[in-house]
Amino acid sequence: MTRPLFVHLVPQLFDPEQVQGGVVVILDILRASTTIIHALENGAQGVIPVADVEQARVVASRLTPEQVLLGGERDGLLIPGFDLDNNPLAYTRDVVAGKQIVFTTTNGTAALERAKAARQILIGAFVNLSAVVDKVYATTGPVHLVCAGTRGKVTLEDALCAGGIAWKLLEKDQQELFDRTDDQLQLVLDSYRNRTKDSATFRRAMRSSFGGRNCVRLGFDLQIDRAATFDLFKSVPSFDATTGIITI
Amino acid sequence: MTRPLFVHLVPQLFDPEQVQGGVVVILDILRASTTIIHALENGAQGVIPVADVEQARVVASRLTPEQVLLGGERDGLLIPGFDLDNNPLAYTRDVVAGKQIVFTTTNGTAALERAKAARQILIGAFVNLSAVVDKVYATTGPVHLVCAGTRGKVTLEDALCAGGIAWKLLEKDQQELFDRTDDQLQLVLDSYRNRTKDSATFRRAMRSSFGGRNCVRLGFDLQIDRAATFDLFKSVPSFDATTGIITI
Repeated sequence: MTRPLFVHLVPQLFDPEQVQGGVVVILDILRASTTIIHALENGAQGVIPVADVEQARVVASRLTPEQVLLGGERDGLLIPGFDLDNNPLAYTRDVVAGKQIVFTTTNGTAALERAKAARQILIGAFVNLSAVVDKVYATTGPVHLVCAGTRGKVTLEDALCAGGIAWKLLEKDQQELFDRTDDQLQLVLDSYRNRTKDSATFRRAMRSSFGGRNCVRLGFDLQIDRAATFDLFKSVPSFDATTGIITI
Repeated sequence: MTRPLFVHLVPQLFDPEQVQGGVVVILDILRASTTIIHALENGAQGVIPVADVEQARVVASRLTPEQVLLGGERDGLLIPGFDLDNNPLAYTRDVVAGKQIVFTTTNGTAALERAKAARQILIGAFVNLSAVVDKVYATTGPVHLVCAGTRGKVTLEDALCAGGIAWKLLEKDQQELFDRTDDQLQLVLDSYRNRTKDSATFRRAMRSSFGGRNCVRLGFDLQIDRAATFDLFKSVPSFDATTGIITI
């Protein structure tokens, strides 16, 4: 039996029960996924995603103050009183090593919540794309590439990353283990193919995407470039729905 | 000011208020849009879309029996006691001329219902694609290309038609009247570009899409071919939300 490979362009496009027993990859490229991967690669002990600012403060207050940092964003910006915003470049080793990051962003958290029935929940981005492909290939069962989107809107940057993961997974899939019929899969494959023909085209696509336009507006051009870098890192964070913590 | 051009891959991806004052094109390629266009081009007086089978019988019972036909489908097939299924090839001039068609399909009707706040609601398909492009170009205000999908699922055949309309509209748009930034628009443009390179590729895409697979399973290959024919007809049906009737 082949393994179904689904893409969901926004989390609202799948029923929470549909992912039960499957492997989910959460893609929130600009910027939560990219930032979480940076934090963990730079030595953070764990990232604890929470839904809102109040809950973030409550969760943080239960941990040793020296061990915890508050991170995340609202409307793209630093939350008053927080240590870090959602800038992957700010999660350097000297800042985050050994710390627990209590982290709140609107879209990534909603996607995780909706996917929690899955057997395995991974955090993917361009910065760990090949690692995600290898990890997913080594699992069994249905695969769901979940684009976080932005407030229920489809975003091209997440769709492109889903397309990239799917493209490389199917390239690797000499034995045709994967069922390729999903229509959303077809759409993201087409887009990935068109928009990664050369680096200038890819850069233009990332900057013109919904998340990219927001970043450009806020002056976060370097963050887009970082998020659009392939395979900076080799690890794939996973979310443990029991402990509520993302680790590598 | 430029005119926003939006694509919605399923009707659930827009809020009903969002289309207020705009022009909506409903795309339910396999097969409701294609069938409705055939019916009206072949002389039907009007098509009255209704949500369910019971309502179809009630609406039909209010009309002169000689003037009315019951059409539509459930699970792709003829509804017991109905005159016609959802096969565009069955809506020939000798069958439909002068008749009102009371018509029920799951997806097209839901899309119409959600779009009813729009200033203008048009029915589009490959069979009248260039006519849709001309008609939309001649209007003003935001444009929403609404893919009907199937039971809330994104379907490639509707996405491809949205891509085709958008592609030709933007080709025509020398003065850059349209705002091209919508991310769903980008996705369907990529797909249209990849999947219409030659007629064999296009045919394969249409047959492998969600709606196409259903038609293949039911033995409706000729209907797919018909739905995949560009510009058979020159008119664009429109839905009058006040009378509840689609006419040309």
